Amino acid sequence: MKLLEERILKDGIAVDSDILRVDSFLNHQVDPVLMEQIGNELADHFKDYGITKVLTIESSGIAPAMMCAKAMGLPLIILKKQTSKTLCEDIYKTVVASYTKSTSYDLTLSKHYINENDHVLIVDDFLANGEAATGAIRLSRMGGATVAGIGIVIEKAFQPGRGKLEEQGFEVYSLARICKMDKDYIEFCD
Amino acid sequence: MKLLEERILKDGIAVDSDILRVDSFLNHQVDPVLMEQIGNELADHFKDYGITKVLTIESSGIAPAMMCAKAMGLPLIILKKQTSKTLCEDIYKTVVASYTKSTSYDLTLSKHYINENDHVLIVDDFLANGEAATGAIRLSRMGGATVAGIGIVIEKAFQPGRGKLEEQGFEVYSLARICKMDKDYIEFCD
Repeated sequence: MKLLEERILKDGIAVDSDILRVDSFLNHQVDPVLMEQIGNELADHFKDYGITKVLTIESSGIAPAMMCAKAMGLPLIILKKQTSKTLCEDIYKTVVASYTKSTSYDLTLSKHYINENDHVLIVDDFLANGEAATGAIRLSRMGGATVAGIGIVIEKAFQPGRGKLEEQGFEVYSLARICKMDKDYIEFCD
Repeated sequence: MKLLEERILKDGIAVDSDILRVDSFLNHQVDPVLMEQIGNELADHFKDYGITKVLTIESSGIAPAMMCAKAMGLPLIILKKQTSKTLCEDIYKTVVASYTKSTSYDLTLSKHYINENDHVLIVDDFLANGEAATGAIRLSRMGGATVAGIGIVIEKAFQPGRGKLEEQGFEVYSLARICKMDKDYIEFCD
């Protein structure tokens, strides 16, 4: 997605060979116009996959996933990173390691909102090690659902996420794929 | 907002006199069509207030706030509940008590995305004790911004949030106001 690559080059900050800050339009400050374009692009790619629900992981994935779900006319499910007392029973739970935050967390999905008739699209802002997406796949399968594919806004193609997901037979569609990064340097894959 | 009240009566679950579960269309599973209607309604109410940015608190506020920001043609800022290593410097920080989770958390806002020319609208899914909104106001003021108002999807009008915010001179606009609740019983304010 040319528009997204241009935006990353213009407003993204490559801190080092691993950390890309896109706080100004995706993660912290969010550009709703760009989110709609991203949502439309993902929706268009996956339109004929028979998808029944869009799943995302709180919280940076919500904005693009929301616009994708809207464009597809489908419900969005936000996988929660912890249980609160207002959502404490009837849940599927899995543990996900977070490299960004050097910790792990419980990812949860209510049993009420997924079943064996669901064919889900997983949407997230970043793909790096694939831990979050793999957690979302585990939760979907616990609910008996099948996974139609994984839609990603920005892929760090130099990390093993795509490989892990493709090995399991899943299609990964990323709108921007970064092949190499360093301080103030970003190179997209062809 | 009649449509929202009807949806709460149809799909909301009043657990007891305090806890309302709206996991099926707002908090966990999200209805994008309803979110767009909510966003449009908030945008319409605040359209002449000279707002420059929409602020929300991760993560349940993101979906409605996103649609509000989109309808207003403004950027959305997601106040983060903790700092990660990709966003660790140049931030304003305040502590917010969470009644739902019986704990407190740090709420953060990057200094890069707010300044004294900003007049912000704070949007959140729930208003109960007003702690999250008050934290968002504190962060806005740390950045030198002024607060145009607070837009809420569901207000628990029997709790002190509105009173606390109005005492400080802020306008609170809620799309559904619940005056009384109990197990399987919901009463809206007139």
